[in-house]
Amino acid sequence: MCDSFGLLRERRYAILGTGALGGFYGAKLQKAGLDVHFLLKSDYEHVSKSGLFVESKDGDFTLPQVNAYNDVNQMPQCDVVIVALKTTQNHLLPKLLPPVVKDTGVVLVLQNGLNIEEDIAQIVSNVQIIGGLCFLCSNKVGAGHIHHLDYGKITLGEYTPEYQPHPITDKIQQIANDFQNAGIPIELAADLLLARWQKLVWNIPYNGLSVILNATTDELMADADTRKLVEQLMNEVAAGAKTSGRIIPDKFIQTMLNYTLKMKPYRTSMKIDYDEHRPLEVEAIFGNPLKKVQAAGVNLPQISCMYHQLKFLNQRNTLP
Amino acid sequence: MCDSFGLLRERRYAILGTGALGGFYGAKLQKAGLDVHFLLKSDYEHVSKSGLFVESKDGDFTLPQVNAYNDVNQMPQCDVVIVALKTTQNHLLPKLLPPVVKDTGVVLVLQNGLNIEEDIAQIVSNVQIIGGLCFLCSNKVGAGHIHHLDYGKITLGEYTPEYQPHPITDKIQQIANDFQNAGIPIELAADLLLARWQKLVWNIPYNGLSVILNATTDELMADADTRKLVEQLMNEVAAGAKTSGRIIPDKFIQTMLNYTLKMKPYRTSMKIDYDEHRPLEVEAIFGNPLKKVQAAGVNLPQISCMYHQLKFLNQRNTLP
Repeated sequence: MCDSFGLLRERRYAILGTGALGGFYGAKLQKAGLDVHFLLKSDYEHVSKSGLFVESKDGDFTLPQVNAYNDVNQMPQCDVVIVALKTTQNHLLPKLLPPVVKDTGVVLVLQNGLNIEEDIAQIVSNVQIIGGLCFLCSNKVGAGHIHHLDYGKITLGEYTPEYQPHPITDKIQQIANDFQNAGIPIELAADLLLARWQKLVWNIPYNGLSVILNATTDELMADADTRKLVEQLMNEVAAGAKTSGRIIPDKFIQTMLNYTLKMKPYRTSMKIDYDEHRPLEVEAIFGNPLKKVQAAGVNLPQISCMYHQLKFLNQRNTLP
Repeated sequence: MCDSFGLLRERRYAILGTGALGGFYGAKLQKAGLDVHFLLKSDYEHVSKSGLFVESKDGDFTLPQVNAYNDVNQMPQCDVVIVALKTTQNHLLPKLLPPVVKDTGVVLVLQNGLNIEEDIAQIVSNVQIIGGLCFLCSNKVGAGHIHHLDYGKITLGEYTPEYQPHPITDKIQQIANDFQNAGIPIELAADLLLARWQKLVWNIPYNGLSVILNATTDELMADADTRKLVEQLMNEVAAGAKTSGRIIPDKFIQTMLNYTLKMKPYRTSMKIDYDEHRPLEVEAIFGNPLKKVQAAGVNLPQISCMYHQLKFLNQRNTLP
């Protein structure tokens, strides 16, 4: 029986981008006994010597020793390569991905936004691509030091050309098992594109307005005007999804609104990036959805308005 | 011959709101020899004693003595009552206007936005209303101290029910002459509603974005994204004007863009209000146009997006 992917033996994982997200999930996988290899940049020296420290609401833990690399060509080829970079770094992937992924391997992209897998399929056309949407609240607070505040669930869906919905395969099920054994809740989605649009229902209004208006989620929900604008933006996302034949019912939107109302005051990940003067994921979250629906002849004017506002703010905020 | 309006004798003027705008135009009129009566609030004591000082790029001047009031009931009835309050103070007009305007008088409203004259016609149904749109760059820098930086032209148009275009009347011509004799350039518009929409072509994008993005006009024009958004917003204003049968051609929009490109870096009046924590004229400039076109079944989504953003910012900015 062919076992090149590791269906019977343990799978080897690579983490490209060992930050708040990649560091957290990678550490959880290694803690559960898996063979994990971490690519780092600024924290390489520290993590090579001292490993990773995860401060978590589910219990703190330290990994005194991890497989740390600052050069992808030094890494072993892996069964599962987790892309945990910000999408603003995706221009690096043509150099990073090919050396580290096995021919029979999987690229698991833990990134927000749209058109992500299509771009990666151009780089590694022979391997399977899985998309993952993380509901995670986590920050990197120091070198090799990750603070996990809340949540952690990942929605996984298999990428196919044109995003045709796809039954759950053995490969994705095995990866899901690895994550679940490591204490990471997993939901499997047969329709990855629908899952991505559903995530945008939350990300577009809250990430965008939190930066533009310097506001937390609770402030946006407490004010009648922004509460209304959030809902209008969610409806535009639903209109966008419809151009790909994905239906997001009003009930889903109401659930998202109620869910956010009940959340603790939350500073979105885009707002954290903005406050830290890091580049914002404007293209993945706003630009790509706009391009996709414009190709179908549809305009999303309020999202477009915020796209231009965010690009202006991002440009000014990241000037050297 | 009936001369109750003062077609043959000198007209008596009232200025309601002696700030950057009312103080400037009122002082110019008095300096030209007209009989002007100023209503003041916070500056009343100072101006009663020391008069007005206008620091102007056209030459500084002082009026050591002016007719100052802090109670509209002490004022004489006037031929021309100039409303120079911010629109955010218009809820005061039912108390302020009736005592001071002659039966045969004129109310001259020097305010931006839409639906202004319609509201005033509800208060003083018997008198003529004239709308005026000021292209003025002026600040109040101290009690009774006005700094006139640039421009000053006023476009005047007669208000008629339903904003039917109207030939220039003797009354409006006389007022125009008074202003011109005082060195204030006047343009007469037969179609006041068109003039108001044309003013919004500039005010909506630049006033709105300057507050939301904390930017000056030159910054908005230098960035490709905001430059594009400004133009999209101008096109939405034109679509709004069209619901009232007013045509704003693309050539007009291009002229506004080029004019702003050539302007010196400019902090808009709404941005100045925001920086001073004064209430913003969101309803007059954004809310009323939106209501007017929604009544015609038309949606202006990008202007609506900015309306909600501005209301949120305004609310938070003016908290006691």
